[in-house]
Amino acid sequence: MKALSQQNFIQQLSIDCVIFGYQEKQLKVLVPKLDFKGDFWALPSGFIFQDEGIDQAARRILEERTGIRDVFLEQFKVFGKAGRTNIKFFERMIALNEEKLGEKRFDRQEFEWITQRFISVGYYALVDIDRVVPRKIEIDESIEWYAIKDLPEMIMDHTELVGSALEALRINFDHRLLWFNLLPETFTMKELQQLYEIVYQRPFPRNNFQKKILDLNVLERLEKKYTGAANKAPYLYRFKKKHV
Amino acid sequence: MKALSQQNFIQQLSIDCVIFGYQEKQLKVLVPKLDFKGDFWALPSGFIFQDEGIDQAARRILEERTGIRDVFLEQFKVFGKAGRTNIKFFERMIALNEEKLGEKRFDRQEFEWITQRFISVGYYALVDIDRVVPRKIEIDESIEWYAIKDLPEMIMDHTELVGSALEALRINFDHRLLWFNLLPETFTMKELQQLYEIVYQRPFPRNNFQKKILDLNVLERLEKKYTGAANKAPYLYRFKKKHV
Repeated sequence: MKALSQQNFIQQLSIDCVIFGYQEKQLKVLVPKLDFKGDFWALPSGFIFQDEGIDQAARRILEERTGIRDVFLEQFKVFGKAGRTNIKFFERMIALNEEKLGEKRFDRQEFEWITQRFISVGYYALVDIDRVVPRKIEIDESIEWYAIKDLPEMIMDHTELVGSALEALRINFDHRLLWFNLLPETFTMKELQQLYEIVYQRPFPRNNFQKKILDLNVLERLEKKYTGAANKAPYLYRFKKKHV
Repeated sequence: MKALSQQNFIQQLSIDCVIFGYQEKQLKVLVPKLDFKGDFWALPSGFIFQDEGIDQAARRILEERTGIRDVFLEQFKVFGKAGRTNIKFFERMIALNEEKLGEKRFDRQEFEWITQRFISVGYYALVDIDRVVPRKIEIDESIEWYAIKDLPEMIMDHTELVGSALEALRINFDHRLLWFNLLPETFTMKELQQLYEIVYQRPFPRNNFQKKILDLNVLERLEKKYTGAANKAPYLYRFKKKHV
C-alpha cells in the first residue's frame, strides 16, 4: 500500500461515512476499531483522488468496508471548524503505538499528513444489514455494527457526525421514503411501523400508520407470512420500485 | 491585494454563496458580473484561510458583497464532480482579457491556482433586501439583484448551485420558519402569503394560510397598515423572536 502522503489525493479534504443498518429493532452504525493500542474507534473514512468525484470517493470508501456499492448514499453536511484536528490527540495515539507504527505504517511525513487540518464531507448510507458482511481494512482491528445508543466513543467529532447524520435521516426518512433501504426485500406492516418508531423515537398509531403507508401506493402485497398461527398471519409487502 | 496563490488558503476548496432576497413579489439572487470582457457572471465566492472555520469563511464572503453579517446563512451542498473546472473556459476568459490581466491581476501562477480542480461548499443566505447595499469587490464590474427567472448565465455550475439552493430553501422554508428572514421588520398577512406563493410556486388559500400561520404563535400583531382606506386596512405583523 502506497503511503497516504504519497498518493494523489486532494489535500485537507476527507470523507466520513455514517453507515446505518437496522436489526433486532435497533438502528445501528458500522464502526471500525482501529488497529492501535488505546481503543480508538473512527467512522469509515477516506480521501478523494484528484481525478475522482466526491460521490465516487464516498462510494469507494463505503464499498471498502461493506462490499456493496449499489445502496442509498448521500452527503449530509460538511464539518469544517478550524479546530477539528486535535494534534495532541494524534500525538498521544502515536506515542501509545510507537512500536507498531515503526514496524509498519507511519513515518514523520505520514504523521504530518494525517494531522493536517481536514475538512470532512459527511455522507450517510442506508443498507439492508443482512446484505453486508463488514470488512476490515489494513488499519482496522475489528469492525462491528453498534446500536446507536451503544456507540463507542469515537475520535475527533465522529460522534457529532453520527448525530448530524441521524438528523438528516429523520428529515428525509418519511417524505423521501428512505425506509425501504433499511428493510429486507419483504417485510410486514408491523415491521415497517417498528422501524418508524425507532427512527423517530415515538409511537405511530397502527391504523393511521397503515393507511398512510398504503395510500402512498408504493407497496406490493405478497402472500401471508408463515407464523404457525395461520389465521393471524400478517401480509408481507415488497417495495414496488427500488429507486436508489 | 496579495495574490490569491500566495495567500494561506486551503487548496482546492472554495465557497460559493447564493444570497436570496425578496422584492416586488420576486425571489432574487445577488450576482456579481466580473470585471472582464466577455460577460461573465459568477456567484459571490471565496476561499478558506488555514485558521478559519468554513462557516466563518462563508460569513466573511457574504459580508464582502453585502455589508451585513448577522443573517441566516447555512451550507446546503458540496459540489465536487471531477470535471467541475473547465480549463478551456478559463483559457478563453483569459485570452479575451489579456490586456486587462497583464496590467493588474493574473500571472501564470495565479492562473494555475484558479484553474485547479475546486470542490465547492454551497451556502445560502436569506436577507432583508432593504438592508443590503450590494458592494463590488476588486474583481467585479457590477453587482445586482436578479429575479430567479431572469438570472444571467453564470460560469461553471453556478446556475445548478442556485437550483440546488432553492431546493434547500423550499425544504426548510416552512417548517423552520425561514420566511421571516426575507421580509422587512413588519409585514401584512397578505405579503407573507405572497412570499409563500412565490417560493413554492403555487397558491395558498387565504383562510387556511392565515390560520396556519397564526396558530404557530410566532407573530405579534401591531397597528393597522395605513392605506388611505381605513376600514379595509390590514394588520401589520412582526416576528416575535429573531432566532438567526
